[in-house]
Amino acid sequence: MKKISSLSELGLTADVSRAIFRPFPSAAPVSPSSGRTKISVIGAGNVGMAIAQTILTQDLADALALVDANAEKLRGEMLDLQHAAAFLPRTHIAASTDYSVTAGSDLCIITAGARQIAGESRLDLVQRNLALFREIVPPLARYSPESIILVVSNPVDVLTYIAWKLSGFPPNRVIGSGTNLDSSRFRSLLAEHLEVNAQDVQAYMVGEHGDSSVALWSSISVGGVPLLGSLEKHQIAYEQEVLERIRRAVVESAYEVIRLKGYTSWAIGYSVASLARSLLRDQRRIHPVSLLAAGGALLPGVPPDRYVFISLPALLGRAGVLGVASVHLTDEEVRRLHASADTLWEIQQQLGL
Amino acid sequence: MKKISSLSELGLTADVSRAIFRPFPSAAPVSPSSGRTKISVIGAGNVGMAIAQTILTQDLADALALVDANAEKLRGEMLDLQHAAAFLPRTHIAASTDYSVTAGSDLCIITAGARQIAGESRLDLVQRNLALFREIVPPLARYSPESIILVVSNPVDVLTYIAWKLSGFPPNRVIGSGTNLDSSRFRSLLAEHLEVNAQDVQAYMVGEHGDSSVALWSSISVGGVPLLGSLEKHQIAYEQEVLERIRRAVVESAYEVIRLKGYTSWAIGYSVASLARSLLRDQRRIHPVSLLAAGGALLPGVPPDRYVFISLPALLGRAGVLGVASVHLTDEEVRRLHASADTLWEIQQQLGL
Amino acid sequence: MKKISSLSELGLTADVSRAIFRPFPSAAPVSPSSGRTKISVIGAGNVGMAIAQTILTQDLADALALVDANAEKLRGEMLDLQHAAAFLPRTHIAASTDYSVTAGSDLCIITAGARQIAGESRLDLVQRNLALFREIVPPLARYSPESIILVVSNPVDVLTYIAWKLSGFPPNRVIGSGTNLDSSRFRSLLAEHLEVNAQDVQAYMVGEHGDSSVALWSSISVGGVPLLGSLEKHQIAYEQEVLERIRRAVVESAYEVIRLKGYTSWAIGYSVASLARSLLRDQRRIHPVSLLAAGGALLPGVPPDRYVFISLPALLGRAGVLGVASVHLTDEEVRRLHASADTLWEIQQQLGL
Amino acid sequence: MKKISSLSELGLTADVSRAIFRPFPSAAPVSPSSGRTKISVIGAGNVGMAIAQTILTQDLADALALVDANAEKLRGEMLDLQHAAAFLPRTHIAASTDYSVTAGSDLCIITAGARQIAGESRLDLVQRNLALFREIVPPLARYSPESIILVVSNPVDVLTYIAWKLSGFPPNRVIGSGTNLDSSRFRSLLAEHLEVNAQDVQAYMVGEHGDSSVALWSSISVGGVPLLGSLEKHQIAYEQEVLERIRRAVVESAYEVIRLKGYTSWAIGYSVASLARSLLRDQRRIHPVSLLAAGGALLPGVPPDRYVFISLPALLGRAGVLGVASVHLTDEEVRRLHASADTLWEIQQQLGL
Repeated sequence: MKKISSLSELGLTADVSRAIFRPFPSAAPVSPSSGRTKISVIGAGNVGMAIAQTILTQDLADALALVDANAEKLRGEMLDLQHAAAFLPRTHIAASTDYSVTAGSDLCIITAGARQIAGESRLDLVQRNLALFREIVPPLARYSPESIILVVSNPVDVLTYIAWKLSGFPPNRVIGSGTNLDSSRFRSLLAEHLEVNAQDVQAYMVGEHGDSSVALWSSISVGGVPLLGSLEKHQIAYEQEVLERIRRAVVESAYEVIRLKGYTSWAIGYSVASLARSLLRDQRRIHPVSLLAAGGALLPGVPPDRYVFISLPALLGRAGVLGVASVHLTDEEVRRLHASADTLWEIQQQLGL
Repeated sequence: MKKISSLSELGLTADVSRAIFRPFPSAAPVSPSSGRTKISVIGAGNVGMAIAQTILTQDLADALALVDANAEKLRGEMLDLQHAAAFLPRTHIAASTDYSVTAGSDLCIITAGARQIAGESRLDLVQRNLALFREIVPPLARYSPESIILVVSNPVDVLTYIAWKLSGFPPNRVIGSGTNLDSSRFRSLLAEHLEVNAQDVQAYMVGEHGDSSVALWSSISVGGVPLLGSLEKHQIAYEQEVLERIRRAVVESAYEVIRLKGYTSWAIGYSVASLARSLLRDQRRIHPVSLLAAGGALLPGVPPDRYVFISLPALLGRAGVLGVASVHLTDEEVRRLHASADTLWEIQQQLGL
Repeated sequence: MKKISSLSELGLTADVSRAIFRPFPSAAPVSPSSGRTKISVIGAGNVGMAIAQTILTQDLADALALVDANAEKLRGEMLDLQHAAAFLPRTHIAASTDYSVTAGSDLCIITAGARQIAGESRLDLVQRNLALFREIVPPLARYSPESIILVVSNPVDVLTYIAWKLSGFPPNRVIGSGTNLDSSRFRSLLAEHLEVNAQDVQAYMVGEHGDSSVALWSSISVGGVPLLGSLEKHQIAYEQEVLERIRRAVVESAYEVIRLKGYTSWAIGYSVASLARSLLRDQRRIHPVSLLAAGGALLPGVPPDRYVFISLPALLGRAGVLGVASVHLTDEEVRRLHASADTLWEIQQQLGL
Repeated sequence: MKKISSLSELGLTADVSRAIFRPFPSAAPVSPSSGRTKISVIGAGNVGMAIAQTILTQDLADALALVDANAEKLRGEMLDLQHAAAFLPRTHIAASTDYSVTAGSDLCIITAGARQIAGESRLDLVQRNLALFREIVPPLARYSPESIILVVSNPVDVLTYIAWKLSGFPPNRVIGSGTNLDSSRFRSLLAEHLEVNAQDVQAYMVGEHGDSSVALWSSISVGGVPLLGSLEKHQIAYEQEVLERIRRAVVESAYEVIRLKGYTSWAIGYSVASLARSLLRDQRRIHPVSLLAAGGALLPGVPPDRYVFISLPALLGRAGVLGVASVHLTDEEVRRLHASADTLWEIQQQLGL
């Protein structure tokens, strides 16, 4: 995709650069990709662009590639970012409807996806997205065989499974954004109430992203103080029903934003940029993300041949998922995770993958 | 506007904070605004939100207030930003349709404005925006009498004049984003061609924002090397017509983005965030912005009673405009600035302000 | 203290600024301190300068004032920082042997202090530092009556008490850096061993800074997983003696650095900059710092008239200490805190304050 | 060099990590160096450590290696930086007296060097440093054959030539910090006088670092306004003698800092970190640095077989020096550069390299 129109195109008849710079005689040819970090974002909609812009502002990439089926919209977004060059560290920004633009990426973020049509069944939606992912994932895997794939499109858990199958990548390099943002909303809600910085609140939502996600109440702590234990010690009453109401408020806050402004963008942008940083800068931080949880030893009680992606608190670094934190789960929490695993498994069975 | 739903609302029957924190006995009451930097953004459309989000990511404010007439959209945007709290420095984010939410702002950024209707004359558009600004500017000025007003809405030069008249503020505290972004696009275009960092390209677009803006060719330098002088020295031919073509490419790049994606957002977001930083952190950097240029001594030859805002390279700091750089202007450039001043003056005469 | 030598001094006979900038006619006088954040650092030794430089790099202040008794050393440090202006956001840097340079500070950081002489008793050292603080604290309090005082000099707990008494400030505005850095070293040690980001390790050292500090083993968690509980669950043996050995290794790591390089600087610089950020940007983060713990209700069992500063995990914001986290303490941990409180109390009794 | 003492060493009898993290079953082995940026700093004195700490604070490296002949001092500095882990992005910090620790560096920064002894001739000093560089440069080049070498030790121009000869590297990958910091001091002096941000002042010191450096007065501009031209236009008198006095004030400001505090550290730390960023993040910014200027076509009039390094404004990127800006030089400025080239050449002739 053509860049900003060039001076020569506009009629300047010779090399202006020659007038400004004397070439350095013995300069070896620049290897443009040496040590460079490249991120590709698939889908230039509100989510994809909020991610791309946040990645740029936070200076997480040396090269950024955008892919979308809509060439006009895509070029408009690329130009809008390029016009900001004077306000940002120098980053190579490219865009194309062709996946070759993503070649050599360290991280491929998929935000493209069909939206649910009124009355459409969940399975039908997944089927339509499967068709879409068949066009996206294989070329990504081919052009960047060593990359990490991060799926943001919904329903994220099934689509991450699909990306894993279609890419042929090892499971540590296929991740879904999962409940990373739900967990942030959970922490923000608690932090707002306690008037404390959300970064000092430890709280996880895990499991299936969406209505069936599981809030790990027993793991919540604020500045090192366990929440439930403290409530009990201070004889502050709470009921399971209340906790469930709070969990549901977190889940529904996403729907609320969609109802109010039509889509979500900023929070998912920050959430995914934070994952990108932990992965690419090898930060070894812990984020709840969708990963191959069942079929391995991570969800005891699930048959070993059931490959299902759900969110658990993962240690993330340059190699993708490095480990999973052994957070305490109550029997009820395990039961819910199993139920989600069953649901996801059933949908996957009908995909013919 | 209600925040994230609170835990007490959701049924937690007592003060959870008491269980986590022992209050510090002798703590004096917090003065929440002491030394705090507050920015208000009027208009929660694509431009306003790109500005607000960039300001948040770059940690430029301790408090951010959003105002828009559309309460639903506004609440959706506020929640979307608040959900990101765990990924950002702690910032107080509020939103309301009522201007009281802006009280005590250090900087008020106006992005609201009527869009041009097909067939509408420029004067009619200005008249409609004047009506809108009559609702926006007086309450802003009343709630934040010491603030700086930064107008982003278009046509920016006339609207900055209007904001100045309606606010009663001294001219150093009323600024239009003017050609700050045009200049960035100009620098990006040159930097892209020369394969050099745009921050090492000095180049200004000044005058009226839009079609009649003036590119100051004689002031362009790259890493300390004057562009035109170098072209001449290296006998690289160029014609006035070519330079004019390049200027027009810069101006049209904004229209191109609008045609392709429907609006501009990212670049204006970064551009305004960069102005906010220079102003509020007293950075004393030089940006071309729309300021009271004629009527003072800044555009010799313009009658002293003609008050017109156009863009010139201004030294910006905590007090707003501190000075104007004495860049060299050719006779032709002065002629164009005078022509713009005349056009703006004529429009303003018909506003009945 | 004279700045970089000025151009006029060097013989340029008229105002160069007039040639570059046209003054903006109606600019109201700049109020240089409006909304400005000012930090003063007392003591330009290795610790004070590491703090000052980190604060500059992290852009935490609009104005920085340095005070030291050694005028030559002080001027050298000031010039060395000022020479970096082209690489940093514009910050006003001043230095003087006179405390008037600190006027209007938001935060005063005291790093000056007498070092222990071989054979000197602890009490003698405190007495010498008391004499020094009598010269430092009253002028600081007079020139910045609304500031927060942060004591870094050692022995930090007694000196924070002394600063509180000499300043007459309410206790929420007098803080010692205490075990904030010890806690960071503790977290770094655990994080290194677990190969995880230290920011995902929650662990506190509390109590008296130095040999008698208390490691809160029962509060340690990694990514939401309690450490001791997990060891027990996995039947990983550990003995109290081993934990005590680890605690001692943390305490001794400071002495090791001093033995090897002669002093500590970088880690204390980052530690204090992180406190400055939480305080001045009202971040409401939790840090273990030395605060008025006994004499209030924070250390039950200590007589109400015993005013002693020791480190506890505090919620810090613009008003200083806002609350103290109710971390769980074992009986043994409480016993140790009481013992420290007794020791500190006894020393204080002999000061004649 | 041993890290922070490990938990297992301290007696914890089993793998604690196993209790916290379940390993992710199919994780491929982490390639620790994939896409990683590694910087080595040779010499852990005041200059080397200010550089290392600024690089850490500005998050410019994923791995940092320190080398020094003094094992104790070196270990102390390493531990002091490692103790700050909880306040910084996760970075791998290692130190050793053995150069193997630098293997695979992208950038090697040499700050080690003998200091001038009273009465010692310049040639004797260079000879002593040549002996030192014979121990430093060959192992650096062997362990990191693709790296860029950046020489900071003084006399920087001759030592950069020596590093070039001893490394066998192409000239684009051997750079001296040269007049980069002098230029910053020059810009700071002008900015201070004009009360403008130093980043809006373009001004170069070039040539030999130290007493004979050349201030390019005709290239100075402030916000796009040429300085000398403006003075003339406003009939502000200045004499060559005054300009020379200003140049000398810049040169002497380094000596002043050394006289006052014993050494320079902060400004050189920021200056070198800024070079590291332009190089490793491929920023293509323009910095005056010491490069192979004569012997190529960059200093017309110098015989082609005279290989001399002096500072010129260079375009820096991932491949090192990419070009040299064609700044205007007066005949007098060319004469001074030639004189410096002659002096350097003569010294080099006596080195027997």
